[in-house]
Amino acid sequence: MTAGSSILNPLWSGTEIARATADGAVLSALLRVEAAWGGVLAEAGVASEASAEQVRSISIDPHGAGLRSDVLADAASGGGNPVIPLLAEVRRVLAARKADDDALHRSATSQDILDTALVIVLREGADIVLGDIRRIAAALSQLSADHRATVCVARTLTQHALPTTVGLRMAGWLDGVVRSAERLEVARAGLRLQWGGAAGTQAALVDILGQAEPSGSTTASAGELTEQLAQVLNLAPMTRPWHTQRQSILEISSALAGVVAALGKAAADVLTLQRPEIGELREPRGPGRGGSSAMPQKRNPVLSTLIRSAALSAPGSLATLHHSAAAAVDERPDGGWQAEWPQLMELLRLAGGAALRGAELFEGLEVLPQAVAQNLAQSGDALLSERIVSRLGHRTPGGPAALKTVLAESAVTGTPLRSALRKVFTTAELAADELDQLLDPELYLGRTQEFIDASLNAANSFLTNSERMIR
Amino acid sequence: MTAGSSILNPLWSGTEIARATADGAVLSALLRVEAAWGGVLAEAGVASEASAEQVRSISIDPHGAGLRSDVLADAASGGGNPVIPLLAEVRRVLAARKADDDALHRSATSQDILDTALVIVLREGADIVLGDIRRIAAALSQLSADHRATVCVARTLTQHALPTTVGLRMAGWLDGVVRSAERLEVARAGLRLQWGGAAGTQAALVDILGQAEPSGSTTASAGELTEQLAQVLNLAPMTRPWHTQRQSILEISSALAGVVAALGKAAADVLTLQRPEIGELREPRGPGRGGSSAMPQKRNPVLSTLIRSAALSAPGSLATLHHSAAAAVDERPDGGWQAEWPQLMELLRLAGGAALRGAELFEGLEVLPQAVAQNLAQSGDALLSERIVSRLGHRTPGGPAALKTVLAESAVTGTPLRSALRKVFTTAELAADELDQLLDPELYLGRTQEFIDASLNAANSFLTNSERMIR
Amino acid sequence: MTAGSSILNPLWSGTEIARATADGAVLSALLRVEAAWGGVLAEAGVASEASAEQVRSISIDPHGAGLRSDVLADAASGGGNPVIPLLAEVRRVLAARKADDDALHRSATSQDILDTALVIVLREGADIVLGDIRRIAAALSQLSADHRATVCVARTLTQHALPTTVGLRMAGWLDGVVRSAERLEVARAGLRLQWGGAAGTQAALVDILGQAEPSGSTTASAGELTEQLAQVLNLAPMTRPWHTQRQSILEISSALAGVVAALGKAAADVLTLQRPEIGELREPRGPGRGGSSAMPQKRNPVLSTLIRSAALSAPGSLATLHHSAAAAVDERPDGGWQAEWPQLMELLRLAGGAALRGAELFEGLEVLPQAVAQNLAQSGDALLSERIVSRLGHRTPGGPAALKTVLAESAVTGTPLRSALRKVFTTAELAADELDQLLDPELYLGRTQEFIDASLNAANSFLTNSERMIR
Amino acid sequence: MTAGSSILNPLWSGTEIARATADGAVLSALLRVEAAWGGVLAEAGVASEASAEQVRSISIDPHGAGLRSDVLADAASGGGNPVIPLLAEVRRVLAARKADDDALHRSATSQDILDTALVIVLREGADIVLGDIRRIAAALSQLSADHRATVCVARTLTQHALPTTVGLRMAGWLDGVVRSAERLEVARAGLRLQWGGAAGTQAALVDILGQAEPSGSTTASAGELTEQLAQVLNLAPMTRPWHTQRQSILEISSALAGVVAALGKAAADVLTLQRPEIGELREPRGPGRGGSSAMPQKRNPVLSTLIRSAALSAPGSLATLHHSAAAAVDERPDGGWQAEWPQLMELLRLAGGAALRGAELFEGLEVLPQAVAQNLAQSGDALLSERIVSRLGHRTPGGPAALKTVLAESAVTGTPLRSALRKVFTTAELAADELDQLLDPELYLGRTQEFIDASLNAANSFLTNSERMIR
Repeated sequence: MTAGSSILNPLWSGTEIARATADGAVLSALLRVEAAWGGVLAEAGVASEASAEQVRSISIDPHGAGLRSDVLADAASGGGNPVIPLLAEVRRVLAARKADDDALHRSATSQDILDTALVIVLREGADIVLGDIRRIAAALSQLSADHRATVCVARTLTQHALPTTVGLRMAGWLDGVVRSAERLEVARAGLRLQWGGAAGTQAALVDILGQAEPSGSTTASAGELTEQLAQVLNLAPMTRPWHTQRQSILEISSALAGVVAALGKAAADVLTLQRPEIGELREPRGPGRGGSSAMPQKRNPVLSTLIRSAALSAPGSLATLHHSAAAAVDERPDGGWQAEWPQLMELLRLAGGAALRGAELFEGLEVLPQAVAQNLAQSGDALLSERIVSRLGHRTPGGPAALKTVLAESAVTGTPLRSALRKVFTTAELAADELDQLLDPELYLGRTQEFIDASLNAANSFLTNSERMIR
Repeated sequence: MTAGSSILNPLWSGTEIARATADGAVLSALLRVEAAWGGVLAEAGVASEASAEQVRSISIDPHGAGLRSDVLADAASGGGNPVIPLLAEVRRVLAARKADDDALHRSATSQDILDTALVIVLREGADIVLGDIRRIAAALSQLSADHRATVCVARTLTQHALPTTVGLRMAGWLDGVVRSAERLEVARAGLRLQWGGAAGTQAALVDILGQAEPSGSTTASAGELTEQLAQVLNLAPMTRPWHTQRQSILEISSALAGVVAALGKAAADVLTLQRPEIGELREPRGPGRGGSSAMPQKRNPVLSTLIRSAALSAPGSLATLHHSAAAAVDERPDGGWQAEWPQLMELLRLAGGAALRGAELFEGLEVLPQAVAQNLAQSGDALLSERIVSRLGHRTPGGPAALKTVLAESAVTGTPLRSALRKVFTTAELAADELDQLLDPELYLGRTQEFIDASLNAANSFLTNSERMIR
Repeated sequence: MTAGSSILNPLWSGTEIARATADGAVLSALLRVEAAWGGVLAEAGVASEASAEQVRSISIDPHGAGLRSDVLADAASGGGNPVIPLLAEVRRVLAARKADDDALHRSATSQDILDTALVIVLREGADIVLGDIRRIAAALSQLSADHRATVCVARTLTQHALPTTVGLRMAGWLDGVVRSAERLEVARAGLRLQWGGAAGTQAALVDILGQAEPSGSTTASAGELTEQLAQVLNLAPMTRPWHTQRQSILEISSALAGVVAALGKAAADVLTLQRPEIGELREPRGPGRGGSSAMPQKRNPVLSTLIRSAALSAPGSLATLHHSAAAAVDERPDGGWQAEWPQLMELLRLAGGAALRGAELFEGLEVLPQAVAQNLAQSGDALLSERIVSRLGHRTPGGPAALKTVLAESAVTGTPLRSALRKVFTTAELAADELDQLLDPELYLGRTQEFIDASLNAANSFLTNSERMIR
Repeated sequence: MTAGSSILNPLWSGTEIARATADGAVLSALLRVEAAWGGVLAEAGVASEASAEQVRSISIDPHGAGLRSDVLADAASGGGNPVIPLLAEVRRVLAARKADDDALHRSATSQDILDTALVIVLREGADIVLGDIRRIAAALSQLSADHRATVCVARTLTQHALPTTVGLRMAGWLDGVVRSAERLEVARAGLRLQWGGAAGTQAALVDILGQAEPSGSTTASAGELTEQLAQVLNLAPMTRPWHTQRQSILEISSALAGVVAALGKAAADVLTLQRPEIGELREPRGPGRGGSSAMPQKRNPVLSTLIRSAALSAPGSLATLHHSAAAAVDERPDGGWQAEWPQLMELLRLAGGAALRGAELFEGLEVLPQAVAQNLAQSGDALLSERIVSRLGHRTPGGPAALKTVLAESAVTGTPLRSALRKVFTTAELAADELDQLLDPELYLGRTQEFIDASLNAANSFLTNSERMIR
């Protein structure tokens, strides 16, 4: 089976994020942590180079060493996590290779290995998500700029409200996505090494290093080795173990769910706006995209549909992770921790899938100006009602309230606004060209351009910083 | 990779429910639906026997036909569901086998196939869950009966409260599990065929059967063929399509989540009661169960831990399914439906994993009577305080309130209850043997035996009916 | 403050369900339970009639007795629930009235009182919900029947798919609502008395009745008194206490959430279908409904909007209740129980608010046939593509696949279907009137009428049974 | 009814956070926004001072002006939000006072007012939460320091694992709470003014200011007035409206849920550690705290119980808010926005209630050193098994694996570790005092002190910065 395939998850099946969170990737991350620690121990002189070398070799080619993630997975229920059978297997391999196991798992606990491995997967997964968000940010910036002056109808509570521009709508999507991505960057930076030993005290490590006794066998301290491990794994240093303090897990989870929500909002709008009766937008038509099993004429908005399905799924995972954090009892938890693992992978896949589909969606999204104009025209002059009341209310007998009543009634009866106004104002009272000006949607766009620029600037700043961060 | 393995899901990795919900099982169910329909069409004379036969042959051996679930999975994003690439592949195979495709997917829509396949997987999955629940019900019935008279301390808000019996506690678990299972049986029976065609009208089917026109080509009606299909698939008949009315999905989901909650409550109690300081229970020690990666002396309560992790995870999936049901817009949904699929499989796996682990747990659960007695003795006479107030309150100067104060103070100061009472009552006022009787926990068990019997009877009735239902 | 008002909850503020779940209603239910039990005890001769009478009097007029729900609420944090301060207050009143307190709370625990009170509120709340659902079922039955032949476009994944009828769409809503209501009726019937005493054994009650000792002071058994209490409160009898077995709570919660989901699906469709560009439906315009603070021309679909907000909120409460059920540890829980109370009231209010707004919505919902027809015409002949392929595919050179390609291309290029077909078939090959027939949406409605009838029958059966049940 | 009382919410009923989120507080915040804007308009010369003054006067004394939050609440269903009836009422008052309404709601939309009011409530609510967290941080710092050397048993998967110290356990709680609070500070700072007008363009404002036309009637720009409004309300400036981009709402919600999770973890530990059989901790005994309705001897851990109930409830609200954010369609949403309001208040109350109860809990939490020592002694030498294997494994015939087997067997059979070791090592091979040293828990505490210091430093830095921030 291809790593990362899942027949009921077209959102992410077969994508980069799926591979990065598949069992093989988790196994690899687990082994990378063991290998990195073996190397640190060997360098400090408390484990043999040969043992460390063999652990490293296994971590590079677990398949060649005969490790199979499915076998480990099925054995994991014995101890409640996959690290325990993994260690047994690695020890078996080391023994077969006549290598010592003194560089393996020394002073560590399975939670150290698994949490750190998950952090590695989360960090690499976040980079994949951020990579696709950069594509989205670039695409939406372009769309916002291109359509900054395309006047369209703004909809509130589903009804036509005022004029706005297509560019401002897209700048809103851009704004949400960029802000969520910046939070993801912060949360990603908050991910750190987990290294506490069996009960979060590093007692075994200190003991090995001989610090609990007068004559230490090495000059390196437990703190120094911990820092070296973080460096080797390219992770933020750890000030203290967090076996049962899961705030950094909540931070990255919330950020991932925030990304999905931002994309979900945009996808929901695209789904509305490409309904045939509205027709202002069209999803890109790639080969094989949007087909139906029964109706040859259909082009389904598959990308938005998949993103929306992500937005329906992510909050449940986020809630579970908060329950798990509160259930992280004692010095290491009895169920709360175990419940986290699949939800973290799921959130990564939902965010990654949504970002990848979003990138394809926004890079190819078509705006159909004719439909935009037609919908704007449908409500016509009524879209300027707010302005009419503001400008003419006090010139109306009975004041603004009376004018509001006139406008509300014209909406109910379907009387064109101009006709309704002409029953109130003679042309002497309200000249035709003044009325034309008042009813010109292009003259009632407020700070649309400023707000678009604000989003574009924020996006540009994100893209610039984000690029720098990666390098 | 072994079907149904998952390195971060030791709860269910490698189990029967995992296999029953794996991609291969879903693919098989999809093909079984197509094959059943092909057979119905052929029998009705509206498709060729040869085509139906070939579809059936592919459904029996998809691998032999070159179908790969991972390839289909990765192609599913094109149309947003796996049925579309599946049909393309099956058509390719039929063509290669020189067979007509007139028995394939005629008049159906992908949602018909996928919903019905999910119903099949749900029904078979529910049977697996119910099978393990029957084991649990039998084991807990035995435990409840065996320990019906083992007096222990009842705990409320974590504190010692009154005497009860170990049997009653277990009868409570039994009660919860049995009631949840009965709801699952009802929900399972409510699962039915989905057959509506592209928009839920069966227009294509009626059209094929020629009913929309004067001279029909067959005597079978669309309703009859629909009923035959349900029969062939051994599903409840369908009164109308439910593409966007997902109540039966909510019913089965709620029932599965209810099972997990019932098991989660029992597991939470086991986790508490096997804490070393309490020590009233001990999980069974199978080979490879409960080991630690660092501490050789430890026996971890892995089964309860895994069940608790299920209880932390199921509610999020249930919530997602309710959101999806409300988002099932139009005649077929744009994201709501797609979000359901993985959550349904997840709920099945959580319930199935929890039930399997629960069966192992309760079939081997040990009660340690010495610890039970010791904990009962720890609070000692104070456990009878409620009774003392009820019996002696009105004989106390100052009445029940005064006596309550005495008892509360004795609890705070740690004064033994008897000493405290002796400051209130002389032996003349309260004879030693009366006091002994009053303070005998065995004489303050209320309707414990009746309540145990009520649970045992309910369980027995469930086991009997459930057995009959299966046959 | 008006009972049941809430400035941020327009969904239900000021409605019957809000009053039925307000603090005063809960207080009243708590007192009704105490009074009923006092009455049972007095009748059995184990409490004084005078005391029972006073408790009853307080329960009828708590305000007159000086009880204030806000004072009790603020005092409830002391013991963690409101029953404890309530008892203190009632005792104070009894003392002031020179009445004995021997009919108050004898042998009960606060959870008995609160759970039973919540059951009463849930049952009465469910009746309110069901009452409004009956209005909805009647209204939707009428709409389905009225519009059973109004042909409209069916939409799948937001795109035009096939012809269907407005009546079938509404029959779908009807079906969902009725099925959810039937589940609510079942769950309501499963609600029962909670009566277990401090640890679920009824030890205190048995003790009072003298059954633990040779010479009982009464001939009534604890079981009989428990049954009498259930009768007096008009509740289902209890086979055993369920302090920590919360399946019946899960059943009613799931049913309430199911009702909200069914209404949420319908409201989502109404929100789509009344978009100005689609315009097939219009919410009723009551006085004060749908106004905007800024735009006089707007008529906002407020009823559907409020129902949708309920559908977004209910799943979270349902999930919390499942977590709470699993956290119902020991013999009485340390947080799981406490978390249930507000969520149960919230679910009642969400379901009640949604049902009330739904009744107003569907009793006044307008169908705009002209827009219906116009949208159907927009996609035109393409809606019959599925039929064209089925009927003409095998008459096409290259077969169905070739014809599908023609149709898909015509959709992309916007070529009318007839023109496209004419490039494939001469009029000799395909007569004009045959084509007209093939492209007539009225002749491609399949089993629409049967399916409508199925829903109407189910609704009728619900309305009949439901009416009988209430009487 | 007392503002902020709720009979089923003892967690927060009657507290400061309850008052700060009650209907009256929301009404006041709504009016403060209107008044602030009226003031800005008047100062800019585009509204009359008299009108602004009257709006301000109403905002200061809404009761005096005859505004009743319950009446407004019940009227809010008309337009779907409370601002619409509020404006009608305020206009009525202004008219009665012969004041113009030109300073009321000019150019604003109801979402501007309500979102900004919620931001004000959230900010003030966050300050209340942070105030109590500062108390908690101080109390936990003290406890961590006081008990930094109190050796206790560390528990993993509920079982005894290694030695640790009470101080380190508490430093863990401290760490979680402080980190969550720092996130809350960041999210609080990210809350900003909402000011977009009917469709998020500020068109009405720009129009009023005459900027859309050559000759402006004022020199102030819309941007400047927006900034002034933010200043007057003491809010962060707004770069663009966020009617449908709800990231800042997600940020504050996630932070509040994070606070609850951190407190929930600590409360869960307290609940375990004060079980009678464990007894290492005791909740403070305030007057009226912890009583039972039936059992006078009981002291219930009410504070932890209430905090745990918060931890069970918050994730559901957080999930709802993420669904709402994704459902924030169009230019202003049709249900997504409306669903947010009560959940935001609920999250504030849960966090505020948990923090307040937590402050009382941790300021009075007692450590019982005797029970701590007794539990440590219960597992005795076995707690040093990890060390024994590390130190003696290679001196054992058969190596570490053989020694592990010995230790595991001694755990199963209950053989004291020393006896078991003596079967492996003679006193010549392993001197008595060496063994004593190896088995001394005080000599196997690793970096406990460093990790405590890390938490104390982080807490100190939070307390210092946080104090500064407030001033």
